Order: sequence, then C-alpha cells, then structure tokens
Amino acid sequence: MSIVNRQLILQLRPKGLLAPGDLQLREAPLLELQEGQALARVKYLSIDPTMRVWMAMDSYLPAVAIGEVMRAFGFAEIVESRHPDYKKGDRITGLTGLQDYVVLDASAGKSFQKVPKIPFVSDTIFLGLLGINGLTAYFGMEIAAPKKGETLVVSAAAGATGSIVGQIAKVRGCRVVGIAGTDEKCNWLTKDLGFDAAINYKHADWKEKLAAAVPNGIDIDFENVGGEIMNTVLELMNLHGRVILCGLISGYTKEDPSLASFGTVLVKRLRIEGFIILDYASRFIEAATQLGQWKMFGKIMDRETIVEGLGKAPDAINMLFTGANTGKLIVKV
Amino acid sequence: MSIVNRQLILQLRPKGLLAPGDLQLREAPLLELQEGQALARVKYLSIDPTMRVWMAMDSYLPAVAIGEVMRAFGFAEIVESRHPDYKKGDRITGLTGLQDYVVLDASAGKSFQKVPKIPFVSDTIFLGLLGINGLTAYFGMEIAAPKKGETLVVSAAAGATGSIVGQIAKVRGCRVVGIAGTDEKCNWLTKDLGFDAAINYKHADWKEKLAAAVPNGIDIDFENVGGEIMNTVLELMNLHGRVILCGLISGYTKEDPSLASFGTVLVKRLRIEGFIILDYASRFIEAATQLGQWKMFGKIMDRETIVEGLGKAPDAINMLFTGANTGKLIVKV
Repeated sequence: MSIVNRQLILQLRPKGLLAPGDLQLREAPLLELQEGQALARVKYLSIDPTMRVWMAMDSYLPAVAIGEVMRAFGFAEIVESRHPDYKKGDRITGLTGLQDYVVLDASAGKSFQKVPKIPFVSDTIFLGLLGINGLTAYFGMEIAAPKKGETLVVSAAAGATGSIVGQIAKVRGCRVVGIAGTDEKCNWLTKDLGFDAAINYKHADWKEKLAAAVPNGIDIDFENVGGEIMNTVLELMNLHGRVILCGLISGYTKEDPSLASFGTVLVKRLRIEGFIILDYASRFIEAATQLGQWKMFGKIMDRETIVEGLGKAPDAINMLFTGANTGKLIVKV
Repeated sequence: MSIVNRQLILQLRPKGLLAPGDLQLREAPLLELQEGQALARVKYLSIDPTMRVWMAMDSYLPAVAIGEVMRAFGFAEIVESRHPDYKKGDRITGLTGLQDYVVLDASAGKSFQKVPKIPFVSDTIFLGLLGINGLTAYFGMEIAAPKKGETLVVSAAAGATGSIVGQIAKVRGCRVVGIAGTDEKCNWLTKDLGFDAAINYKHADWKEKLAAAVPNGIDIDFENVGGEIMNTVLELMNLHGRVILCGLISGYTKEDPSLASFGTVLVKRLRIEGFIILDYASRFIEAATQLGQWKMFGKIMDRETIVEGLGKAPDAINMLFTGANTGKLIVKV
C-alpha cells in the first residue's frame, strides 16, 4: 500500500505577509520503512511567529531551504515502527514540519520527545502550555527574576507565550499589565487571567493609558513585539529595569532598521547593560586605589590632551566629537 | 577686594557641534564668603562627551538650564574657607562647572571630594585615570566580568575611558581589540598600551579588518560609540556575549532614531537579555511539571485557536501578524 504524504514546501521567501505560492502543497509518496525508522502521523501543528523568520533568513537556526518542507513544531503519533525507541501508539512532539507524516530515524532522539497521555487534557497542550510557549514563558520569567510587588509589562499579551508570562508573574506576586490589539483580548486578560490591567494599543490614547496603569513605573518588560511598543515601554521603565527580549514580531513582516540591532541581540542571546558611573560613587576609593597601583607598576598608562584657557572649553567639547584628542581631554583654567 | 569669576553660561541648546554663542563667557563678581562657605579656585576642567548631552536634554541628570553655568567636572583648590570641612590648600574634585571659582556650601560633601597630593603625579590624574574615566573603566569591566582568554572589543578606544578599559582587559587576560579614528591612535594602542589589535574605522575595509582581528569572535563589547560601529561589533559577537553600554557618542551631535532606544537603555541603566528557548532544552521536564501543576490548581489558564486542515497553515501563519488569534494557534492536520 502506498501512502501519500502531503507536504507544504517553501517555494519563495515571503515579503511582508505570506502570499499564495510562498508555501506550496506537494504530494510525496512515502517509501517503505527501513530498519531503524519509524513513521509518525502528524495530528497537530504549532503555528509560531518564529516560522516567518525561518522562512526569510538564517537566525538562531538556518533558514529553511527553498524546496524543503517548511519547518514547524508538531504533535504526532507513531503508526508504524522499525525503530528500537518507538512503538506504535507512542506520542511525540518536535520538529515534524508542515506535513501529514514524518519519518523518524537514528537521530530522532535529538528532534523529538515522547509525551504522556494525561487524563482530561487535550493533546494540543503539548504544543502550547506544556510546549514551546509555556517553556518560553517559564524560563523567560526565570531570567526576569521578578520580586514581589514589582511591575511587569508584557506585549503580545494575549498570545500563546504572553498570556502565560502574565499569569506566572501573577503567581510571583507582580503587578501585571498586558498590551494587546483588541478589546476582547484585553477583557480576557483582565477578567479571566487576572491581569491587573490590559491596554489596547490600537486606541489612540494607549500610551497615556499604559502610563496610568503603571503608577510605580515598570521593572520588567517581557518583550515580544519590538518597535514603537517596545520604545514606549522603555520610556516608562524604572532605573535598573530588566528587558527580556523574547520576540520582535512587529518586525518579522517588514524591514525595520531600528529593529535590526535588537534582532541581533535576540538571536545571539546577548546581554546589554546600560551603565552610569554615578551608581558606584560609594566605591570610588576602592577603584582609585587599584587603578593607582596598576599605574605605579606600569600595568596601565594614561595620556592627556591639555587645552589652555577657560574660553577654549567650547572648542574642547567639540574636539571630542571630531576625534581631535587622544586620551583624557582637559582644559587648564 | 572684589574678585571676578569668569563663567561659561549655557545660552542655547546646541544643534550638532557647539556653535559660537551656545556657551557665552560672563564675568560675575564673587560675593563675600558667608559663614559655612568656602571658595575654591578651579585649576583644571574635565571635558567629557556627556557634557554635550547635559546641554541638550534631561538624561541621568537634568539638562543644564538656560542661563546657568555649564556643568563640568573639575579639579580645584580651596583659597579661602569659612566652612568647617575645608581649609585653605585643600584639593578637591567634583562638579565645579566651567568657571574660575566655585563656592562650596553645606551640601558640598555630596558634590565634591578631597584628593591627596601624590608625589611625582600630576593633579590632572584625578580627572582622568583616578577620576571619572578610570572609575568608569573599572566598574564597567566589573560588570563585564571578563574571563581569561575572552575577546573584548572597545570603541572610542583611544579616548580617556576606552584606553583604560583595554588595559584593564589586558590585566584580566583578554584578547583586546580597539576601534579608533586615526592610524596614530591605533599605533598608540598597540605599541604603547599593549592592545592586541587596533582598527581605524575610517579605512574603507575596517569591517573586514575587525572580523580578522577577532578569530574567536567577540565575547565582550565595551560600547562607547553606538550606531554603525556598534552594529558591526554586534554582528561579530559570540552567543551569550555581553555588551557594556557606556556611551553612544556617535549620536550625541546628531538625531539618530536608531540610537534612541539604546539611549534609554543607557540612561536608565537597563539590562536587556536576548533569549531563545532552545538553550533550556535540558530542563523542559522540570518546567512542564511546574506548568502542569499550576494548570491543575487553576493558577494558569490557556486558550487555543484551532484551524482545521494542513492547507490552511499558510493562512494561519499570517493570522499571527494580523492579530486574528487569541492564545495558542494550532493547525489540526
């Protein structure tokens, strides 16, 4: 018996939203299973913003190649097995791709994991709350390290990840404000999920409403969106706040150069810390002692450019921006 | 006897580089000292990029008001005192402002500190290596927490802060690459200060040269410049690298919207962490167990939007970007 496997193939890298033909349905015959292989029937597919990135460019994973099955997380059930680790009826999640069937081979253990059957719980939970989104919310909140009483704002708050982020923050004792794009979503967040406030960013006065919803400022930004929403949140943050950069969905369907550098920060999992020396005033003597010692022992050298006369101070300030000085620039009064 | 105090007054907020008249010299008479005051003669003034920010806008300190003496760090000596904490001949550093004399009053302890007379060392060291720049380099490198063998890149490397940053990184056992704007500066960094390499960003091929100078990638970016230089460094960074955001001098004299959000990160001393869930694969069971427990006890609710049919997957991907779904979006195959 020959089974047909329907597959969605990446034909064109999308510009903006997906257009018809970017992904094309292909019917491929399934070959007979070899020793060491197992066949799984895909039952549910997880649809995630990151898929749009995978279609367009290399990121934390290589871009999907043109002509290949589109990459996606899915839930599947083993229907036939000649693989020592899987038997018929086993249930798995992992990178199944957008297709009816996936063949597991020797390396399957790296891409798939078995999941249990839980009474009264839908299988789809392994793609959402107990899958990539719940895990993202959980570990993202671990990085955020919220303290009781702190204020957290989450964007794309009614999405699969954002809605869990906010609820974990409530468990942790935070004031939680969500940003979403419809009043219905905002109602769900506050009425059902217990968010303290939810702001519809499509209302003209949303920035004022957001400011009013965070009377003590924002300590944690769980950022899923980027762009104008992120910039608005940043302006309301408290000193020494933390930004968990989890997604930049506002930029995935358009070229926004102001998002490019944050995209790099996200993909490379960089940590950026803003830093103003005034915060360390109480430790100046300690530092100066060490620096003086390094200078005395020749570990550190310094150089000065000295300009004479108070009246030359304005020119001296400009020298900094034209590259005219080396080392420390000083005006001798 | 009436002493004249020459002061540079902020008259106009500069656009771009300072223009004549933005700071204007004024001669003010010094009033007789009151009980509790001391008079200090300013001998040296520190010229720092942050002064351009102070002239233009509120940041980590309020902008200097129009008509006020321009704010600046300086080194001064007490010439007359009716203040219990200062006596004639005491030497101080702090926010003297751009003027000949500064009057210290009851709150002087917060703005000024006394410095010792060190044999064979110029007084100006308290404005540079043992002042704001050395301290900035020292505590910035504490945040960076360099490990032996890591690669650090510092921009504005021949500046007062950058040149010390690189030397501290050498003390810590790093490979150090500096970015500067003239060949003479680059020579100073490598020949005198022991940098492993220095790149002149005014050469057309500087990006290739920078890439060649960091064969193991970049672990730490000590960022003083921002803009194109920062973006070029970010592209070469290793996963989980650290960026110490100390300055964005490339943006201080021009309006660059791509720098605006990083400006907020700097001024508010935010910490931004990029985050990809794949890094936490080994702890998925732990997280799923906790999430399942929260769901069981009603602490967390989830919601799904389910679309039927593999062929609908492309439309489903677009739903994410048009805001059409709430909660987890799934395709039932």
